[in-house]
Amino acid sequence: MSFPFVKGHGTHNDFVVLPDLDGSIHGDLEDAAVAAICDRRGGIGADGVLRVLRGGAAGGAGWFMDYRNADGSVSQMCGNGLRVFARYLEASGLVDPTALAGPLAVGTGDGIKQVTYCGDGEISVDMGAPKVGGPADVSVDGRRLVGSSVDMGNPHTVVVVDALEDAGELVASPISCVEQFPEGVNVEFVRVVGDRDLEMRVFERGVGETWSCGTGACAVVAAVASGSAVAGTGEAAPGQGTGSTPERPTTYAVGVRGGRLSVTWDVDGHLHLKGPAVLVATGTWTA
Amino acid sequence: MSFPFVKGHGTHNDFVVLPDLDGSIHGDLEDAAVAAICDRRGGIGADGVLRVLRGGAAGGAGWFMDYRNADGSVSQMCGNGLRVFARYLEASGLVDPTALAGPLAVGTGDGIKQVTYCGDGEISVDMGAPKVGGPADVSVDGRRLVGSSVDMGNPHTVVVVDALEDAGELVASPISCVEQFPEGVNVEFVRVVGDRDLEMRVFERGVGETWSCGTGACAVVAAVASGSAVAGTGEAAPGQGTGSTPERPTTYAVGVRGGRLSVTWDVDGHLHLKGPAVLVATGTWTA
Repeated sequence: MSFPFVKGHGTHNDFVVLPDLDGSIHGDLEDAAVAAICDRRGGIGADGVLRVLRGGAAGGAGWFMDYRNADGSVSQMCGNGLRVFARYLEASGLVDPTALAGPLAVGTGDGIKQVTYCGDGEISVDMGAPKVGGPADVSVDGRRLVGSSVDMGNPHTVVVVDALEDAGELVASPISCVEQFPEGVNVEFVRVVGDRDLEMRVFERGVGETWSCGTGACAVVAAVASGSAVAGTGEAAPGQGTGSTPERPTTYAVGVRGGRLSVTWDVDGHLHLKGPAVLVATGTWTA
Repeated sequence: MSFPFVKGHGTHNDFVVLPDLDGSIHGDLEDAAVAAICDRRGGIGADGVLRVLRGGAAGGAGWFMDYRNADGSVSQMCGNGLRVFARYLEASGLVDPTALAGPLAVGTGDGIKQVTYCGDGEISVDMGAPKVGGPADVSVDGRRLVGSSVDMGNPHTVVVVDALEDAGELVASPISCVEQFPEGVNVEFVRVVGDRDLEMRVFERGVGETWSCGTGACAVVAAVASGSAVAGTGEAAPGQGTGSTPERPTTYAVGVRGGRLSVTWDVDGHLHLKGPAVLVATGTWTA
């Protein structure tokens, strides 16, 4: 078995892209094959696989991203993955950004997403509107911390901490949700660096710390911008609790371990995830 | 900058092979470039880089392996790396194993090494004669354990433990050498499974646990076969201390986290490291 691949990353969230335009190469891509490809020592190594399919079955979008986690399981959507997917379409000549009248529609397991090739070379994705919930508890190394819950299609708990050194320790600790999320939750530890300037570390459920998480960056901005962010102690986080939210559109810089993203909250309440997307290698996999 | 690469592994000790036959492509391969290539999220990802050069300057050997650690630093020799290097020469048609009258000579920073393409498809390397020393102490999570020191060109301390589950915990702990090795030491935790059957976990200095270590597997066999292996408590390990050593040649199976190696102690006192070597991808890197 032998097939072409491209490797790329968005803020060090990395992916193996498998072109399969008409679905004939990987029609039945087994979990074990995905896991073998994503194995960082025995395979190519990646956080996930992005299978590239032409649209058609995807209800209008010209392209469909079949996203698979590193263990082979299906995931509906991945913001950084979609940005790398779009970079692949551009680099391979399948899409000419200069010929687009507006955003590029890409089908995903979570419906059609709008992708924009930005003038500065970065790529942004409309991640939809967050659902900001109430306080939620997480257990970090046996200690109960309070965060605010945000639903981005997947569940997040955002905890404001004073120093990101603390966040480094926290995110490496055994983390579990307490009551609200029996299926587990993604946890973001965030520091408010300045006005519209945040730094975060992220613990992804079932994985542990990752270098970047698109929905996590959006959840952090949703919590802070909506004024609902709380410190781990349960008190209102710095600059929060005043009841005022910024005028929209408003853009936050979000430093993640693997680089720098920006998230814009638009007038419709949607969050747009923007950042670099880089292809580093092209090749043939043989198994 | 764009150049060809091959990715492969030996028992999940993985490498990026950079063909550079006449030295014209990577004449001055900078540390930063090696680190970028070996970055598991932003690059291709590997434990090290194997630059493939034609011999000539290497004093008689037809090929020279320029081995670089993942941080770009030079390492004299790497047993699993040399096995993958030899697989590359075979797969690319540069060496025809069926036309060889004996072992293939490959130059390394540690001199010329003899590589054998085995009939079962595995590749073995003559790793030279070990220097078995006396007991040595290591500090594991603050606890002092006794092992036996073996020099394979680089220093090792071999500690016999009863269960490999214990070894998994031990190898994940903060480990430091005590007195004998001010520059640090590689530590192997080994379980004697049966006659000529060992399992080990390895802590490489400066790195932490790795999935496999060729000199480590050799050090373990040297300690056990020479009858000098000691349990962590300082007592003689099971089957040790009888003063008798096996007749040579003798072969031990050595299970490592990333697979299975075998080590043969020959009549001349040399250790031969044998195991699988697999190429998984061929491609072009772009930076």
